[in-house]
Amino acid sequence: MKPAQDALYMARALVLASKGIYSSDPNPRVGCVLVKDNTIIGEGWHVKAGQAHAEVVALNNTVNAKGATAYVSLEPCSHYGRTPPCADALITAGVSRVVVAMQDPNPLVAGQGLKKLREAGIEVSCGILQDDAERLNRGFISRMTQQRPFIRSKLAMSLDGRTALASGESKWITSAESRRDVHRLRAESSAILTGINTVLADNPTLNARVDFDAEQPIRVVLDSQLKMPVDAQLINTPGRCLILTCSPNSIKQQALENAGFEVFCIDSHNGRLNLTAVMTFLAKQHINNLLIEAGAILNGALLAANLLDELVVYMAPNILGDQGRGLFTLPTLHSMADKKMLHLRDVRAVGTDIRLTLTPR
Amino acid sequence: MKPAQDALYMARALVLASKGIYSSDPNPRVGCVLVKDNTIIGEGWHVKAGQAHAEVVALNNTVNAKGATAYVSLEPCSHYGRTPPCADALITAGVSRVVVAMQDPNPLVAGQGLKKLREAGIEVSCGILQDDAERLNRGFISRMTQQRPFIRSKLAMSLDGRTALASGESKWITSAESRRDVHRLRAESSAILTGINTVLADNPTLNARVDFDAEQPIRVVLDSQLKMPVDAQLINTPGRCLILTCSPNSIKQQALENAGFEVFCIDSHNGRLNLTAVMTFLAKQHINNLLIEAGAILNGALLAANLLDELVVYMAPNILGDQGRGLFTLPTLHSMADKKMLHLRDVRAVGTDIRLTLTPR
Repeated sequence: MKPAQDALYMARALVLASKGIYSSDPNPRVGCVLVKDNTIIGEGWHVKAGQAHAEVVALNNTVNAKGATAYVSLEPCSHYGRTPPCADALITAGVSRVVVAMQDPNPLVAGQGLKKLREAGIEVSCGILQDDAERLNRGFISRMTQQRPFIRSKLAMSLDGRTALASGESKWITSAESRRDVHRLRAESSAILTGINTVLADNPTLNARVDFDAEQPIRVVLDSQLKMPVDAQLINTPGRCLILTCSPNSIKQQALENAGFEVFCIDSHNGRLNLTAVMTFLAKQHINNLLIEAGAILNGALLAANLLDELVVYMAPNILGDQGRGLFTLPTLHSMADKKMLHLRDVRAVGTDIRLTLTPR
Repeated sequence: MKPAQDALYMARALVLASKGIYSSDPNPRVGCVLVKDNTIIGEGWHVKAGQAHAEVVALNNTVNAKGATAYVSLEPCSHYGRTPPCADALITAGVSRVVVAMQDPNPLVAGQGLKKLREAGIEVSCGILQDDAERLNRGFISRMTQQRPFIRSKLAMSLDGRTALASGESKWITSAESRRDVHRLRAESSAILTGINTVLADNPTLNARVDFDAEQPIRVVLDSQLKMPVDAQLINTPGRCLILTCSPNSIKQQALENAGFEVFCIDSHNGRLNLTAVMTFLAKQHINNLLIEAGAILNGALLAANLLDELVVYMAPNILGDQGRGLFTLPTLHSMADKKMLHLRDVRAVGTDIRLTLTPR
């Protein structure tokens, strides 16, 4: 098989994998294509945790995979989880070659599936379209290798970098199209994180209002003093709501739990939650992709702690003036050399706004 | 002649006209194409005030224009200025048809040239590619019809809308490519306007450092209290330097004039220059295109007074934080409905930055 053909079938496997964006959490997004005599004889993707993996779905969709090549966007598993190992299924089906885009990112298991396949006499190639596969599962990879989610912050601002009026009013700076795009970002996130002050000011629902099927993200609020109202809109919309606190007030905690919130105590320092501990906790809650929707203080603290992996900035063509609220509260910069450098990854029009995607440098 | 062919030759006339961008000030940018039997027999453009107009250059570049069609991007003049009227030259040359993109924007003379041509029995069409022609001479048009220059503000900022650190340090937020692009903006401007605080902080030259021939812009500083140092860099670089003031201090004024500055008194209100009076004055100085390079206070005042016709914003992919300086100092906005709305006209990459062009709505 030529590399170009391997890439072609792997690209198809990645397209299939991406269908899991709104449903596969906390599992990775995986697609599989079975090819015999240069013809696709079976396809599959992993829809939902607890259901069949992509390889098994593809094998179930074909009559006879004997002698076929299997293209899988992630190394087949070799262990018994909620389903039997996919490596065994491919061996049993008699495939003669397996092409994978990337190894399992979990360093404890990476390579085990490939090893099992090779030991069964199957030809194995690894690394085809690896960058695309890694991008598709960057949240899962981050959780496996860094024990924290992939952290993306969504910001909506005026041309002059203001997220709200001095009064806090922020409805609306950006266009309806941008706000709709944000709901798509929410739908592809495992969880949305905000601060208690945003909840107190805006009483948001933080759910994903989209016109397609999507798992609702978990809502997470940093609330060191347990100021959350028991009747907040958050708890009146379906889905889990987590409150992370360092308050020892067990009466408030009980009242919030009675209202339906899940309350967790997190390491703190000088009365503020330790953000690294927050992220470790969220990874343990199996959160792959975290979307931050917060004010300048939390965004500034995350930026300063190098805890932002991506910024998605909606910029509206309007001006709010110097008294409006900014994006990032940071300690005073004493030299231009101290500025936080970013890479601009993408710029596109969304309604009358533009959307900028940036990553730290 | 079909309209499509008229547009084709007029497009050529506009390309010729645009060659005058860096030299024709204070005259408009004008190009002329002479066409006979569907063949271009002569071309010309207006290089510099005092030199021949586009029509005369084109006529001088052909042997016999009898029966030709002349395409001119601006109505031919009918009066004696520094050169004889072009309408007369076209009549004398025996052209049978004249196509113009737009009338002379000066309401007192508009239509006179066309009338003279028609009275001589020449067929006249007007309005071909008029939008493009108007865009090319928007500064000249603004001066003629509104008695003020076309006013464009250049702004350089971080992603979070900051033009400098809290200390005022601004070297450099944007990339070398953006700063080079700014020199091109300066070269196509008749004048650069800034405030005295920018001069005191940065001691700039505000000249156009470009690698092609260009008239240097006039430098204009708003300096209500005559704080300009007599040894400012501005006066040590070639070109006119105007100081606009409301200070009655004739000793300081004399010292600055001795140093080479031109000092003018302008209407003021509460110790601040009347910005509308400033613009009227600059129009009387024959300034078509004004580039603002100033801080948040002057930009905010110009925005509030509806004196900004275009914003050119260089945005660098970095973050300076909330304590950095903003773009526009405005009175407190009490409602989101009070935000200043803009149209986004153009977005493009310049080095690692992006350049946004916006106009008021």
